[in-house]
Amino acid sequence: MSLINRREMLKLGSASSLAATILPGSQAIAEADSGIQHAPVPQWEVFEIALPGPVEGNPFTEVQLSAKFTLGHRTIATNGFYDGEGHFKVRFMPDAQGEWSYVTESSVSELSGKTGRFSCVAPLVGAHGPVGVSNGQHFAYADGTPFFPFGTTCYAWVHQSESLQQQTLETLRSAPFNKIRMCIFPKSYQYNHNEPPYYPFERNASGVSDFTKPNPAFFAHIEKRIADLRALGIEADLILFHPYDRWGYATMPSEADDRYLRYVLARMSAYRNIWWSLANEYDFMRAKTTQDFDRFFHIVEQNDPVSHLRSVHHGHTMYDYGHPWVTHASLQIAKFEQAPEWLAAWQKPICFDEVQYEGNLNSRWGNLSGEEMARRFWLGVMAGCYVTHGETLLDPDSSLDENGTPTLWWAHGGTLHGTSPARIAFLRKLVEESAAGSPTRRPGLEAQPVAYYLNASVVNQSNRQPEEILYYMDYHQPVFYDFPLPDGKFTAELIDPWEMKITPLPGTFGGKTKLKLTGRPFQALRFRRIP
Amino acid sequence: MSLINRREMLKLGSASSLAATILPGSQAIAEADSGIQHAPVPQWEVFEIALPGPVEGNPFTEVQLSAKFTLGHRTIATNGFYDGEGHFKVRFMPDAQGEWSYVTESSVSELSGKTGRFSCVAPLVGAHGPVGVSNGQHFAYADGTPFFPFGTTCYAWVHQSESLQQQTLETLRSAPFNKIRMCIFPKSYQYNHNEPPYYPFERNASGVSDFTKPNPAFFAHIEKRIADLRALGIEADLILFHPYDRWGYATMPSEADDRYLRYVLARMSAYRNIWWSLANEYDFMRAKTTQDFDRFFHIVEQNDPVSHLRSVHHGHTMYDYGHPWVTHASLQIAKFEQAPEWLAAWQKPICFDEVQYEGNLNSRWGNLSGEEMARRFWLGVMAGCYVTHGETLLDPDSSLDENGTPTLWWAHGGTLHGTSPARIAFLRKLVEESAAGSPTRRPGLEAQPVAYYLNASVVNQSNRQPEEILYYMDYHQPVFYDFPLPDGKFTAELIDPWEMKITPLPGTFGGKTKLKLTGRPFQALRFRRIP
Repeated sequence: MSLINRREMLKLGSASSLAATILPGSQAIAEADSGIQHAPVPQWEVFEIALPGPVEGNPFTEVQLSAKFTLGHRTIATNGFYDGEGHFKVRFMPDAQGEWSYVTESSVSELSGKTGRFSCVAPLVGAHGPVGVSNGQHFAYADGTPFFPFGTTCYAWVHQSESLQQQTLETLRSAPFNKIRMCIFPKSYQYNHNEPPYYPFERNASGVSDFTKPNPAFFAHIEKRIADLRALGIEADLILFHPYDRWGYATMPSEADDRYLRYVLARMSAYRNIWWSLANEYDFMRAKTTQDFDRFFHIVEQNDPVSHLRSVHHGHTMYDYGHPWVTHASLQIAKFEQAPEWLAAWQKPICFDEVQYEGNLNSRWGNLSGEEMARRFWLGVMAGCYVTHGETLLDPDSSLDENGTPTLWWAHGGTLHGTSPARIAFLRKLVEESAAGSPTRRPGLEAQPVAYYLNASVVNQSNRQPEEILYYMDYHQPVFYDFPLPDGKFTAELIDPWEMKITPLPGTFGGKTKLKLTGRPFQALRFRRIP
Repeated sequence: MSLINRREMLKLGSASSLAATILPGSQAIAEADSGIQHAPVPQWEVFEIALPGPVEGNPFTEVQLSAKFTLGHRTIATNGFYDGEGHFKVRFMPDAQGEWSYVTESSVSELSGKTGRFSCVAPLVGAHGPVGVSNGQHFAYADGTPFFPFGTTCYAWVHQSESLQQQTLETLRSAPFNKIRMCIFPKSYQYNHNEPPYYPFERNASGVSDFTKPNPAFFAHIEKRIADLRALGIEADLILFHPYDRWGYATMPSEADDRYLRYVLARMSAYRNIWWSLANEYDFMRAKTTQDFDRFFHIVEQNDPVSHLRSVHHGHTMYDYGHPWVTHASLQIAKFEQAPEWLAAWQKPICFDEVQYEGNLNSRWGNLSGEEMARRFWLGVMAGCYVTHGETLLDPDSSLDENGTPTLWWAHGGTLHGTSPARIAFLRKLVEESAAGSPTRRPGLEAQPVAYYLNASVVNQSNRQPEEILYYMDYHQPVFYDFPLPDGKFTAELIDPWEMKITPLPGTFGGKTKLKLTGRPFQALRFRRIP
């Protein structure tokens, strides 16, 4: 049935310039009785149907549009959205290769009953699909490739000048981060005083928002940044609500909240590199209740055909991460020692998404030493969990006026100045290496339930025996230790996480193994089973 | 009635050579109808009655001896003990100046009805009486002088060679410690393999102990060491039981336990510088139950006329420090952040008596960096509590054989090699200074209930307003901070706890105070109210 041949599909599959582009639905190759035949779509890219429609009244609220996408026996219903100026769209991320067809439904006849077909072909190079939960407490892309989140935080980077946004992307290109926490709404908070270049809703001359009229340019801009991140292999941990607001977005009426959510979901769900973070510090949003967030979760569940990861970040009071609609925990707390209890209770991955930031601000959350920031990554990884970075380094010679707007990575993006990112890169490499090397390995480190020193293992898929063991000695500084290695043959390496040095020890080791150590604190070790 | 005049009393009061000596009761000045008139006894020193008695049978178990000491309307009953070779003794620490009289009671007539008198005169220079609880969560000597415990740990130092014991005393002379945790029974544990010079009970040729026959030389030796510590102004935190045993002292029958306790109490209670620690790691003593320790506490309460401080140290499971017979908590745990909860629950001082040790051993409890050991002292003090030091530093070039017997301060005493003691000395000085300077101060630091950064205050006795505030920034490294000082005028000093430097800031401060800081982690500040 396909109108392009296999060779063209392969060419398309390696056309990386398409990675950051929405495939225009109007790119019709032929039209037949069964509707438009579109150009092929690589798996996990965004397919878009664009239709002209009515402009009278408020098309955002008055026109319903959706489409059903069918591959064989599967049909996926997807909401469309109004993109302004008479443009109606439906976006869809095909998750399987093959011949897809669709038909639209609408409350207006001119948008209804439109049909079409496309071939979903091999994914682009570097595309692995959306990230989901894997092995209980870990993550993997849809194609099975393990994903180990080493995130950072740039809450309001998309609301800065274009040149600063470009600088942020340039920094991210070589930074060690593969996930970024970022807000949809602009932010009003200390060090965050600028007006955003775009507003999410139409505003009148007095700056009063009409929450029934989203601003398509605002959302298109964020989508462009999500696509930029996708091209860098970075997951966008998109924060849907947050309390730091002076425009009214934190205190919209419930109907407006729900409509906003549906609009975002219709526009953005087809981007594979999205995680939904229902809020930053949900419990600090005084106008909302926990039941509001329960409802938001249900709206996200019901309107996201991709089923992206879903969580919510707390301030003082945890959300119940045990709820079935939460895919992973997103904690603001640095109690890594409680991770075993939480993992057992929730049976989900844990992202320690805010463990304070490397910086030198006034505020306790923003002035960790680089050593402590890097140490917290180790503590999280040793707990079988994941940690998120942030940087709030003021120029030490700056004035003491916190109402100024220095560029701080945590808020604005820009460039990184801290000492932790290099060490986080080093740790990320160790974690990624732990999953590689043997197909028998079950990717992801698991903490030992009773650890004498902090240690975590990657185990064998079938017999659950450790294939690799990482130890982190924290502030302990033994000159020797009897490592209780499993039976077998292991290589041993001394690791200095701060100096980023790996020193192999001669010989092979197994069973109870006495090793002479450095007697310095904050050292690590790696034992790898010799197959 | 006194046979020595006031001038002689004053001479005696300054005779510091008496500080480490038991005043011999046989030092009779005159004998009259009302009994022996003894030489004057400085307040809080040990007065001793020595009487010849029967040697047949087992005088340890078969002869009861006690005395009643009377000053005006107060009478204090005190148990005597058999000291071997026909010597029976009663020791007594007079806690008030004036004319004391006594009369003995015994199950044998030759020890019964003996009477005598002595004047209790002004204390020796440097003697302040036994330490008790003060201001709810703090300590003070009986004369009201605040006592801030900065303890160390030498579990088995009295069971080492005499030369090593002398070296330990020499080290303690200039070390920053004013309390020492030490065991009565010898210890058998890793790095603790030597036989003690004395055994607590008579042993037969096969090394089997007769628990009915204490060895007076063993106890006299420990008393000599307690007196040596007293001369150095150091409190002996005497551990009555512990699990690390190969001689049978951890598994004696209940009657033997109780008899041993009564013997120790009769012999040693009169030493003012004793704290009773019922056990080290009581819950690791498999042959004993918690109810045994309840009973031990009652025996100590009922047989210690001085009412020395009483606690018990735990391994994994805390004893209930809320019991009324416990005077303070003695914890093996480093959860300083839980101190507010515990202080509120127990309403007693908390000594973090085992927070792991500066060292480089195999074992997690014995290989903290010096920085971390010193940091834990700051964390404890900021919590309004007290912390105990220990050192387990092996020569880094030593063999990996842990069955050797290197000299480790924590077990054997000897000399200190670590980097933490100098910093502990620096902190002790700060804490002592915090109580000085103004008679309006209520000695002892109290943690702020909701602290943004860790801080603790010494408050005014009457209005409870802070007179002095210490901040400890831990791993936070702000370049400035808005300190919420109380109204008033304060001096400010930057403190570097590791470099042990105090840098005064020019000017005076009060109310919300923005200060430029170093941007380095692990710094402290001191604010002192200008009267």
